[in-house]
Amino acid sequence: MSRIQHTVTFRLNHPSGSAAETTFLGDARATLTAIPGVEDFRVHAQVSPKSDLAFQFSMFFADESAYAAYDQHPTHVAFVAERWVPEVAAFQEFDYVVV
Amino acid sequence: MSRIQHTVTFRLNHPSGSAAETTFLGDARATLTAIPGVEDFRVHAQVSPKSDLAFQFSMFFADESAYAAYDQHPTHVAFVAERWVPEVAAFQEFDYVVV
Repeated sequence: MSRIQHTVTFRLNHPSGSAAETTFLGDARATLTAIPGVEDFRVHAQVSPKSDLAFQFSMFFADESAYAAYDQHPTHVAFVAERWVPEVAAFQEFDYVVV
Repeated sequence: MSRIQHTVTFRLNHPSGSAAETTFLGDARATLTAIPGVEDFRVHAQVSPKSDLAFQFSMFFADESAYAAYDQHPTHVAFVAERWVPEVAAFQEFDYVVV
């Protein structure tokens, strides 16, 4: 199995440039990078006017099993319930493997 | 200005695994990587069941002006008109810069 790039592009409920936005991005980085298997975590600004989503989290997993372990990890599940759901207005996930 | 990652995630009109699919991906790679300013061109399979898009092209530009030159380049404009529009069923563009 190839290395998998897991991505989620999203827009927050918080105003652009707000303290709440900065806090969310910083907390997400600290929380998600502490979960085993997460490699090369990056926060990107989404800058194309062809989408109204504003940020992307990108991370890599060595294989499908490392990705599944992350998805089910209690820290990830709690982050989704306590931060993602209340603070994210819209999102789209994509996962990539090199052809 | 930061380095920009230009991405488009898409689904073809061609059946999965078809010769037409292989031809499109190969022609796109050959055509687009010949345009000045295109760096680190990659073809990815999109594997998340949370999207029905099947592929992604990813490329980098040194800055906004290199990206604009690519967008307006006659080779790119012709590729969009002659191959992208007739062969692509659905797509979403996102452009990313590191925060």
